[in-house]
Amino acid sequence: MNDILKVIGSHVSIRRYTAEPVDDADLNRILEAACSGSTMGNMQLFSIIVTTDKSMMRRMAPAHFNQPMATEAPLILTFCADLHRFNRFCGFRGAETGAYSNLQAYHWAFTDAVIAAQNACTAAESLGLGLCWLGTVTFNADQFVDILRLPENVVPVACIAIGHPAEHPEHTLKLPAEAVVHHETYREYEKDDIDRLYFEQEHSAQTQALLEENHKDNLAQVFTQCRYTKKDNEHFSQVLAKVLKNQKFLQIGTDS
Amino acid sequence: MNDILKVIGSHVSIRRYTAEPVDDADLNRILEAACSGSTMGNMQLFSIIVTTDKSMMRRMAPAHFNQPMATEAPLILTFCADLHRFNRFCGFRGAETGAYSNLQAYHWAFTDAVIAAQNACTAAESLGLGLCWLGTVTFNADQFVDILRLPENVVPVACIAIGHPAEHPEHTLKLPAEAVVHHETYREYEKDDIDRLYFEQEHSAQTQALLEENHKDNLAQVFTQCRYTKKDNEHFSQVLAKVLKNQKFLQIGTDS
Repeated sequence: MNDILKVIGSHVSIRRYTAEPVDDADLNRILEAACSGSTMGNMQLFSIIVTTDKSMMRRMAPAHFNQPMATEAPLILTFCADLHRFNRFCGFRGAETGAYSNLQAYHWAFTDAVIAAQNACTAAESLGLGLCWLGTVTFNADQFVDILRLPENVVPVACIAIGHPAEHPEHTLKLPAEAVVHHETYREYEKDDIDRLYFEQEHSAQTQALLEENHKDNLAQVFTQCRYTKKDNEHFSQVLAKVLKNQKFLQIGTDS
Repeated sequence: MNDILKVIGSHVSIRRYTAEPVDDADLNRILEAACSGSTMGNMQLFSIIVTTDKSMMRRMAPAHFNQPMATEAPLILTFCADLHRFNRFCGFRGAETGAYSNLQAYHWAFTDAVIAAQNACTAAESLGLGLCWLGTVTFNADQFVDILRLPENVVPVACIAIGHPAEHPEHTLKLPAEAVVHHETYREYEKDDIDRLYFEQEHSAQTQALLEENHKDNLAQVFTQCRYTKKDNEHFSQVLAKVLKNQKFLQIGTDS
């Protein structure tokens, strides 16, 4: 196994960081890596908002549900799907500016932003830094749009806290690759498959601790009744739909 | 610069491959890397469809607009945003199954799938393989749903052709990192900024060739009038909206 496979394979989320900042040389290496990935038609439809100012972190913290790492990390990178810059480019060159304010182009930009974010992660880990994704960025997208002053056609889709690790957690137990890989066509998951594929995860010490903590019978209920409930998910779907509409990304054209 | 930064920094899309297949050991390393990334709440909301069968590639080729690499690559990986497996898990465990059929959960799954795809790319390049993203997967998403037999709550969001390189193209000219990086808040792009940031790209030999080939005055027009027109983008937005609706990912809850 080469060093790159080792770094990717040993990924673990780090939520606690030392006080040491990420130095500028490393930040620049991370940003260069983020800009090196594939992008749709080489249009580079993403932007990265770099946050190191603690007062900005404190303003965003409630929208990140006050997870400690949202203010304790020395560096937060927020990756946005961004058609605004390309639209400005088109406008200043006498080309049409409304071609990319729609659901299809949003998907290109979303993809570009996550490719950039994952490259940033791999680069950061190669430098000995630790990181954690803040999935909260799509929950309260409206608040990030306000605080980061994102114009139309820009939506935050990925957010990463980065710093020097102050913890060394155990590797998270994943499903076996067999569980997510399909050959040629999608195969249905029957009860036997689910029982077999989730066996190790359901019987882990980590899961036992979760069940006791949440007073639930099984892992599925921890998710649907505690962590991510239907009611919450529908509320945050409504917030997100409003943001996408305001930012002109839900549009599907004139005959719709 | 370490080896990982070198691999990430030297990425270039490879569209022509030798006849040599990707061997099983390398395929497994790529799939393991794809499964090693961060995922929302460790739910692993993605699936990977592995295509090596040429008859399957030929069936999908028209939906990839008959790009030669869609049939000439020895390996195609299609990454899907997948809430179906998790919903089945919930169902078989007596937990609610409707919590994740909505726009918010779609964003988690989309992100998980692209993280997995980019990890697969970095792994493949570390093994000396070449690859290219097939952005077409979101254009004709309906056809991929049919051909790959994707159930509700599964949508293809990323597709990668992989093989041994039979070409060594020049590095694609990117915007400087300054163009995509913002500090603390988003700064507007004025005409001076656009002129400066796009200068190198607009004045490159690559762009000159494109302008002559397309009989256009500037790069922006090549995009809006030839490559990705408003009319096409709106058509493919409608196709995509229909797919997301059918697959239960545009839902935002009962009060909507």
